Amino acid sequence: MKRRELLRGAGLAAVATGLAACGARPEGAADGGPTASTERLQWKMVTSWPTNFPGLGTGAAKLAAMITAASGGRLTVKVYGAGELVPAFEVFDAVGRGTAEMGHSASYYWKGKAAAAPFFCAVPFGLNAQEMNGWLYEGGGLEIWRELYAHFGLVPFPAGNTGVQMAGWFRKPVESLADLQGLKMRIPGLGGEVMARVGATPVNLPGAEIFSSLQTGAIDAAEWVGPYNDLAFGLHRAAKYCYYPGWQEPGPTLECMVNKAAFDALPQDLRDIVDACCRAVNDAMLAEYTARNQQALDRLVREHDVELRQLPDDVLLALRRASDKVLEETAAADPMARRALDSMRAFQAQAKAWHAVSEEAYYATRG
Amino acid sequence: MKRRELLRGAGLAAVATGLAACGARPEGAADGGPTASTERLQWKMVTSWPTNFPGLGTGAAKLAAMITAASGGRLTVKVYGAGELVPAFEVFDAVGRGTAEMGHSASYYWKGKAAAAPFFCAVPFGLNAQEMNGWLYEGGGLEIWRELYAHFGLVPFPAGNTGVQMAGWFRKPVESLADLQGLKMRIPGLGGEVMARVGATPVNLPGAEIFSSLQTGAIDAAEWVGPYNDLAFGLHRAAKYCYYPGWQEPGPTLECMVNKAAFDALPQDLRDIVDACCRAVNDAMLAEYTARNQQALDRLVREHDVELRQLPDDVLLALRRASDKVLEETAAADPMARRALDSMRAFQAQAKAWHAVSEEAYYATRG
Repeated sequence: MKRRELLRGAGLAAVATGLAACGARPEGAADGGPTASTERLQWKMVTSWPTNFPGLGTGAAKLAAMITAASGGRLTVKVYGAGELVPAFEVFDAVGRGTAEMGHSASYYWKGKAAAAPFFCAVPFGLNAQEMNGWLYEGGGLEIWRELYAHFGLVPFPAGNTGVQMAGWFRKPVESLADLQGLKMRIPGLGGEVMARVGATPVNLPGAEIFSSLQTGAIDAAEWVGPYNDLAFGLHRAAKYCYYPGWQEPGPTLECMVNKAAFDALPQDLRDIVDACCRAVNDAMLAEYTARNQQALDRLVREHDVELRQLPDDVLLALRRASDKVLEETAAADPMARRALDSMRAFQAQAKAWHAVSEEAYYATRG
Repeated sequence: MKRRELLRGAGLAAVATGLAACGARPEGAADGGPTASTERLQWKMVTSWPTNFPGLGTGAAKLAAMITAASGGRLTVKVYGAGELVPAFEVFDAVGRGTAEMGHSASYYWKGKAAAAPFFCAVPFGLNAQEMNGWLYEGGGLEIWRELYAHFGLVPFPAGNTGVQMAGWFRKPVESLADLQGLKMRIPGLGGEVMARVGATPVNLPGAEIFSSLQTGAIDAAEWVGPYNDLAFGLHRAAKYCYYPGWQEPGPTLECMVNKAAFDALPQDLRDIVDACCRAVNDAMLAEYTARNQQALDRLVREHDVELRQLPDDVLLALRRASDKVLEETAAADPMARRALDSMRAFQAQAKAWHAVSEEAYYATRG
């Protein structure tokens, strides 16, 4: 909390000091140093998504456009799709070393670099979107995330959420735990490790490679996001069975990461603009998924004869037990992961109790 | 959608034209008209909340601080609590006539001025917070809201959400529909009209007057927000029984309204800053409620012996039936209310189907 309060305090201080930048120039001030607010900055944003891919890519584009517009062009952000400047899974390193000043991605792609990274995106059987925002902004999550990423020269911001995802696409039905044995499935993050515990073989692939891998049979199953995105990739043409709910990604937070040196060199008002626009896109992206997922699901079921099924209870139970073990072992092996898990679990216990009498009770009442 | 796309397009265009404002001045441009970006503006924000009241008042303060900081002080916003400049329920008129340039309130307070207004805050058995954002941003809701408020010289923005509220505080237990007969209850908006249909007598009071009215017995029951806010007002000291779920306000959107002439006179980058900061606070406030409600509920139940109860099924069923009638009659009597209801209902049907296999299925799976 303290760190955020400091940032907020600094933001308020900028009300006064910011006047010395843009506003004061016409009156004759001449201190045009590297952080002067009249300087025009051109930033690159590398992403892990195809350019303008629905939700993810359009969210990154919206973020870049909002920052550019709100800054009156003083900070112009140009978006690069996956592979245009760097490959999908090199966003983290590219922004860390300053090849690009900014990136839009998902922190669970970086679990090989930092065991705690996935906690800030999605944890199996963890927080949903509303709860992730509560934990990150108000429950201490963002402070731990910022501390972790500082070691890599990065400043992270929550910048989007898909809401609850789907469990994935399967070429054959999943009728019991036995059907997961030996199954080769595209599933990243901690969800992949959980699948390994129940006998499957997880692989990670950038989104753009999922369709061909699934269609050729190189993999037997794949989770990507949900109807809105899955329809866009045509995954229904490669696998017939679509399972829910997305136990592995109940409310994944997308990240905007900024090169720390570049961020620290910004005048305070531009830092505040970056912060406000990330929060704005965090709100806007979830709204987009909420509106578009059902339209896409409807098309998948009605026009494409997709079999929409719930995972069997015994499969979900086994996945939940395996998830507890994976999370505990991850935390036991890494102090930052330990802190992230403990902080998240404390928040989750509270959120569950509150949502039982609010969101859940309301869904049940509404019918 | 078209109107928003126009706004967005205008925002992007500002990337180029905005350079002519702040940035170009040092190079010698001299067009310092009323919309020039170097002008310092001081705006007043009137609110319907006590100054810095948890969630609502702090949300308004956060919005003002974010706009001030992100604009580098070019647009400084000063917040006035309810009654400081105008009373809680005169915010709409005060901003419309330009007494203040900006207001933070809840649109259902204005149902006497525009029958369609409550749809943009909360509708009984309607959309929850995630769905409200989907409808407003991506389902056509905001366009209808903007069209409605334009008649009053106002531009509205979603700027906060409390999540599902509680059904309210009652001095005596509610064991059946009979217990609502003749009950005098503080409950605003369409929820109040529904309560009237089932035999209660709804009254509206600003938040700050609820405690004393409930304690003196001037009213028998009151809904305000939820544990975080209700604890702050001490409602548990005036009534023992706390009921859930908040059928009357499943995801109320708070509003930032801006005087239209003042907004139109802003340079484009400041308009974009106002838009981004409203969206940011829309995200931040829900996170705050998600984090704080359970902490407060825990204190209410453990330290203050509050009886936390679910409304009986027959009461909820009667309220749902009465809600359908109230909504239908409201729409039948007013063309804008008709459009708002039809648009919202179409979105709700989709959102329900999607959330059945995502959010609801996930809550059930997580256990």
